[in-house]
Amino acid sequence: MSSVSNERNVTAPTALPHVLIIGGGFAGLSAARALANAPARVTLIDRRNHHLFQPLLYQVAMAALNPSDVAYPIRAILRDQRNTQVLLAEARRIDLAQRRVELDNGALAYDYLIVASGASHSYFGNEHWATVAPGLKTIEDALDIRRRVFLAYEAAERERDALAQKAWQSFVVIGGGPTGVELAGALAEIGRHTLKDDFRHIDPRSVRVLLIEGRERLLAAFDPQLSADARRALEKLGVEVRTNERVTEVTDQEVTLASGERLPARTVLWAAGVQASALTQSLAANRDRAGRVEVQADLSLPDHPEVFVVGDTAKMLSAGKEVPGMAQGASQSGRHAARQILAELRGEPNARSPFRYRNLGSMATIGRASAIAEIGRWKQSGFFAWLFWWALHIYGLIGFRSRTSAFLNWGWQWLTFQRGARLITGERPELPEIGPADRHD
Amino acid sequence: MSSVSNERNVTAPTALPHVLIIGGGFAGLSAARALANAPARVTLIDRRNHHLFQPLLYQVAMAALNPSDVAYPIRAILRDQRNTQVLLAEARRIDLAQRRVELDNGALAYDYLIVASGASHSYFGNEHWATVAPGLKTIEDALDIRRRVFLAYEAAERERDALAQKAWQSFVVIGGGPTGVELAGALAEIGRHTLKDDFRHIDPRSVRVLLIEGRERLLAAFDPQLSADARRALEKLGVEVRTNERVTEVTDQEVTLASGERLPARTVLWAAGVQASALTQSLAANRDRAGRVEVQADLSLPDHPEVFVVGDTAKMLSAGKEVPGMAQGASQSGRHAARQILAELRGEPNARSPFRYRNLGSMATIGRASAIAEIGRWKQSGFFAWLFWWALHIYGLIGFRSRTSAFLNWGWQWLTFQRGARLITGERPELPEIGPADRHD
Repeated sequence: MSSVSNERNVTAPTALPHVLIIGGGFAGLSAARALANAPARVTLIDRRNHHLFQPLLYQVAMAALNPSDVAYPIRAILRDQRNTQVLLAEARRIDLAQRRVELDNGALAYDYLIVASGASHSYFGNEHWATVAPGLKTIEDALDIRRRVFLAYEAAERERDALAQKAWQSFVVIGGGPTGVELAGALAEIGRHTLKDDFRHIDPRSVRVLLIEGRERLLAAFDPQLSADARRALEKLGVEVRTNERVTEVTDQEVTLASGERLPARTVLWAAGVQASALTQSLAANRDRAGRVEVQADLSLPDHPEVFVVGDTAKMLSAGKEVPGMAQGASQSGRHAARQILAELRGEPNARSPFRYRNLGSMATIGRASAIAEIGRWKQSGFFAWLFWWALHIYGLIGFRSRTSAFLNWGWQWLTFQRGARLITGERPELPEIGPADRHD
Repeated sequence: MSSVSNERNVTAPTALPHVLIIGGGFAGLSAARALANAPARVTLIDRRNHHLFQPLLYQVAMAALNPSDVAYPIRAILRDQRNTQVLLAEARRIDLAQRRVELDNGALAYDYLIVASGASHSYFGNEHWATVAPGLKTIEDALDIRRRVFLAYEAAERERDALAQKAWQSFVVIGGGPTGVELAGALAEIGRHTLKDDFRHIDPRSVRVLLIEGRERLLAAFDPQLSADARRALEKLGVEVRTNERVTEVTDQEVTLASGERLPARTVLWAAGVQASALTQSLAANRDRAGRVEVQADLSLPDHPEVFVVGDTAKMLSAGKEVPGMAQGASQSGRHAARQILAELRGEPNARSPFRYRNLGSMATIGRASAIAEIGRWKQSGFFAWLFWWALHIYGLIGFRSRTSAFLNWGWQWLTFQRGARLITGERPELPEIGPADRHD
């Protein structure tokens, strides 16, 4: 190591305990922040260099925001936290006995471990659907969905067969939770407003958007009245909502429902199921069907008080009730784990306390000016709820810069119905034939 | 075709002549715009859905701007031009005898053809360098370069061998034209300012940036005094400039010079040569070493007055002098070709006129607050030239939205030395081993 880098090293003596955090999402990041002044060496690893503000990722997929509006480099966020280092690395296996984590290349020992490796999509055993029905978890996912959506209109414009054209203009969203509702609303608006004057051979306004939910209502985590409001708002945007409906097959041509009905659609988005990160398979612990680790009341692993599992990777209970898999639960759980460690580092043994989830409310947005919000007993739907949603999310975006840029992008999009980021990048599949030779009808 | 789409068709009778434009860059787009009111059916095809403001593409590669700040959907730009359609398609071959263009799938006949398919990188016969020394022509190129640059710092942070670490912190830019100068200046600033506090095991300020130019001075198209000013400004930023120097080998480990000197560097960027689009190979016409088609004075093809070749695809002369391959030459040539067609469509035969290039001046920027400008006999370097460059480029960005967003991104970056868009996306290669097991020194 050169002398230059030595003088920049973390000043804490190496004898300090090492706290290793896996994952730079809401849970991991809030854990790291809570350890800012801890008498410990803290290492946060993530296989990506950026923290992602996942509640707004669908806006990138729908071309309203840029990737850098919703993502920010983790090392820039933790830059001034001198007891903490950030490493770009992927955790492959956790060795509880040896207290070490094996990485893509190398390994790290720990005294305390916080597992916050998040979740990915689950196709409930139909993993082959992944290629035709992408889910939305990463920036790459969002750009892939954006490419598919806008390519579908390009393909429709090239297509001459009316039925085939219609299939390119049909979008199916599977899963009626907040993400599914948000995607369906945005898809309808893209056709009806954003693209309405851009084509010559198709009418983008004739877009068909289907939202399919297995349960009896959308947004099952919300009050039934708000679910009904959301459904009405979606239908007003032109979305066909199907509840109590199960998907049995998905191909790149159509979606088949349990009823036998077949929906011709070339673009299918998956917002139905999640599954805890595969990393948890190396933990000798009980896991539920979604792969989430069952943790103790203090969020530690049974028989391993030095290991915590938090966020979407854990099945967390608070006062006997399951904690929903949202940003606030993740943040709170990461902070809780860090505080347990902090107390021990400060010589307060037996200071473990059970995790208490504080529900700050839930929201979902439907299109450009409507939302539902449920905060304690306060329930609201419509434009006012949307304004509230908007202010809260702008505030939540990390870093002033992202906030201003997102504010501006949204403001402009809202005023003009445009979506500035609708670039098609990356590979593209074969498109319909252009012809006859002099087509310009 | 459905009735819905029929009622939205172009209203001009199909008997009107068909003008086909290949390429939505500066040349093709300005040709299409000049035909806005022509008695013709106009079709513009491009294999991408966006026009790219190439003079600012390096800012995307250097994480200062977002892709959508410098790119805008072609069909949105031409939305209100009712005699024009835009198709996402790739031209594969031009059949001059049949007057048709074969596409990736299908074909289009034409009465007039404007070939504006641009240029790509040329590695002067060393095409295997492409994988280790990417050039900068597309949004994908820019994101690839961004990934490589910021991954290099991540790799250096993981690396423990001092020499290997140094190679990750060494960047070589090959080619001392405007793009090479701009990339080298930005690379130096990223290490010295943007990232300076972000790492624990390396000092980003010790970054090494080499700029290699085969000719005796940088920016050979400019006045020698300005070249010298630019060199001084780069050296002040810490860039090592090597002129009169040729590269003989490039690998993912090092760059070898004609002198035999070997420069260990894991990141190499190519800004040296361009080559006209391969599409021109199907034209029976003389082409120069860079593959550019030799055109008549009016920019048409010899023996084919109905075919024009413009922009980077053509070797264009104006008053006996070669037209430089820049945005203004491309725009002017596209407009000129369109006007020749327009005159004939309006029944003014023998109205062909020779192309006259009007040099509006050239500029190049060096880092965050310096530039050189040469406009006629007015020559300027330093901060004032930079301000002028900046105002001109903000103005040049298509669409108010891109302009505001870019303005904001730049303003913020300038004030804080930050680069908000430094996300690493896409695949990443294997990184150095992390270890010993408890590394946190």
